[in-house]
Amino acid sequence: MLIVQKFGGTSVGDLERISNVAKRVAKTKEQGNDIIVVVSAMSGETNKLIEYAKHFSKTPALKEMDMLLSSGERVTSALLAIALCDMGYDAISLSGRKAGIHTDEMHTNARISHINTKNMKKSLNEGKIIIVAGFQGINENDDVSTLGRGGSDLSAVAIAGAMGADVCEIYTDVDGVYTTDPRIERRAKKIDKISYDEMLEFASLGAKVLQNRSVEMAKKLNVNLVTRSSFNENEGTLITKEENIMEEPIVSGIALDKNQARVTLRNVKDEPGIAAHIFSTLADNNIIVDMIIQNVGHDGSANLGFTVGENDLESAKNIMQRLNAAENLEFDNNISKVSIVGVGMKNHTGVASLAFTTMADNNINIEMISTSEIKISMIVDEKYSELAVRSLHEAYNLGDRE
Amino acid sequence: MLIVQKFGGTSVGDLERISNVAKRVAKTKEQGNDIIVVVSAMSGETNKLIEYAKHFSKTPALKEMDMLLSSGERVTSALLAIALCDMGYDAISLSGRKAGIHTDEMHTNARISHINTKNMKKSLNEGKIIIVAGFQGINENDDVSTLGRGGSDLSAVAIAGAMGADVCEIYTDVDGVYTTDPRIERRAKKIDKISYDEMLEFASLGAKVLQNRSVEMAKKLNVNLVTRSSFNENEGTLITKEENIMEEPIVSGIALDKNQARVTLRNVKDEPGIAAHIFSTLADNNIIVDMIIQNVGHDGSANLGFTVGENDLESAKNIMQRLNAAENLEFDNNISKVSIVGVGMKNHTGVASLAFTTMADNNINIEMISTSEIKISMIVDEKYSELAVRSLHEAYNLGDRE
Repeated sequence: MLIVQKFGGTSVGDLERISNVAKRVAKTKEQGNDIIVVVSAMSGETNKLIEYAKHFSKTPALKEMDMLLSSGERVTSALLAIALCDMGYDAISLSGRKAGIHTDEMHTNARISHINTKNMKKSLNEGKIIIVAGFQGINENDDVSTLGRGGSDLSAVAIAGAMGADVCEIYTDVDGVYTTDPRIERRAKKIDKISYDEMLEFASLGAKVLQNRSVEMAKKLNVNLVTRSSFNENEGTLITKEENIMEEPIVSGIALDKNQARVTLRNVKDEPGIAAHIFSTLADNNIIVDMIIQNVGHDGSANLGFTVGENDLESAKNIMQRLNAAENLEFDNNISKVSIVGVGMKNHTGVASLAFTTMADNNINIEMISTSEIKISMIVDEKYSELAVRSLHEAYNLGDRE
Repeated sequence: MLIVQKFGGTSVGDLERISNVAKRVAKTKEQGNDIIVVVSAMSGETNKLIEYAKHFSKTPALKEMDMLLSSGERVTSALLAIALCDMGYDAISLSGRKAGIHTDEMHTNARISHINTKNMKKSLNEGKIIIVAGFQGINENDDVSTLGRGGSDLSAVAIAGAMGADVCEIYTDVDGVYTTDPRIERRAKKIDKISYDEMLEFASLGAKVLQNRSVEMAKKLNVNLVTRSSFNENEGTLITKEENIMEEPIVSGIALDKNQARVTLRNVKDEPGIAAHIFSTLADNNIIVDMIIQNVGHDGSANLGFTVGENDLESAKNIMQRLNAAENLEFDNNISKVSIVGVGMKNHTGVASLAFTTMADNNINIEMISTSEIKISMIVDEKYSELAVRSLHEAYNLGDRE
């Protein structure tokens, strides 16, 4: 098997942890596998360098940020190679450039354009363990570029795709994807297998295990992705094609996102295109609007409600006050989004009604609803959010499945 | 003018100091010069990374050490570029590779083979301030290599040579080269100009301002080298061709090296080639022998004395005991080497006799002597070494010149 293993910042957070990673890589090699390892910078390093840069400039030159930030992964990759060589393995570190990772010109947030696998294939043929500095590549100008947040995951998935790896293992400090947050519901179970689409919903809904960009790329390149912990031997969660999952449960899990805020416009002015104007202005200011509800009151007055991320609430407030599009503006920070995710919903009826019944049985008012083929999201008062999660987890029998 | 400025680890030791370097570079630019800056890693960084590597291996793979150690200079170069850009200057950082510094394959101690000046010339033509990550280059295998101790000085001198710079300024924490160590003789004066050969003698004799490799390269490439402090505006010392120095003083300075030890063999065995055998064995063990004295006693017995660096004394002892080449072995750690350096000596007589007279006047016994065209070295009892330096400094009027 060809296995790509990616270790994040906390997994290589100190020298002892790097030693543990070396042992794990060695073990995988001993089992007869070919391995490409992708590493992040030691945790804290990247933030330290960003602070340094901010000392000199509020808007540091992006090209220089890439030169600066790419150094951390180089350090980790060299240290891991040194550790493995000392254990008697033939290991080499490769910078993003040497690994053949080519990107576009967008400094600090580059996209991988293609991977030249020549060096990696040569080293694998020579029996070497390859350690790639994640998060970075080289652009058309022959300058170092970095891939933005979650960039090392992207490096790993792209390499797994280009090299035709059997699996791409993403190591973090959690065991995998859970049916819900175990801190809220102690009966939450680790999910063994989940489809790309469900994972994308979970990631959008605030699950922090993997970022959407990596899952999207895994889906596109058909890479079997496993997320697991570097601190134990537990199996982790396989994220794969829907077809690869024999018995898809109807509902895979319950997600909770507390970082939501609601903006309500009462008595919106009766002007053509007013809603379009509101949402295009928000978009121009990089504010992502999630759910939208528009209704007409008994008296014919139009009301408009939408949700944004909590961090964007202040900017949204300013924009709404400037636009002056309604008689009355309300802002509510105390809401949460509870979501039910599962590809099985597509073929089952009654999933939504069970959700609504469960909420009603617990006297939780659903303030907004949005649905997709594989997801139902509900906005509730923040103080009921944990109760909602636990009740739904119970209602869909998630704690008992397996 | 095209000026190369090199800032060492202490000069970029923290963010405040990097700001000061940026101001100095900006000022040089404002004076109408083109500038290439070469930077070291922030002081402490390289040692930290070496410690990390040693945690994993007593003999870390050298190729990986280069990947590891080259990161520090990349960080400094990016930070300095960010600082200069923020001040409104068009500055870019270049890794050793991007600066076109090509080396041989000797990882961690590579030699610069050639410099491809294309990128640097292009950036200078665009009016940019170039910041080069020192200490590193790229080898024939397209792998990062580093240049060993003093490597950033070498980068700077080689770039100055390849680009035909008018001057290469090496910034450290001292003002330049002094007639002798100011801690020993407070009347010591900074030397304004000194020839390459004199500087080479000073460097060999323990002056820590510049390493021989850099001075040798400057001499070979005919680069005007200036060593000066990054912490003040003092002029520094120009190291240049002998012809460029109009009035060469007879003696330029007095050097003191306390890290010397002496080995004496009494009644050396009367075997053919015994001395050759002794010195070739020492050389095979990488022990550098400095001075050698051989004499025949009144009774026809042969004595042999030589000096080695203090650090090599233990190994020299072991070798001598194993060789068993003489009836009697003596080891003396309490000696120092006092040297008088000056190209003017070549054309002046009486320089040596003044030295010997001065020592005699102070009742200092000269235990060994060695001379070259531009240097007289004397081994004295360590306890007289400061007195010897001060007396010679006075005798050659070094404190009063200018």
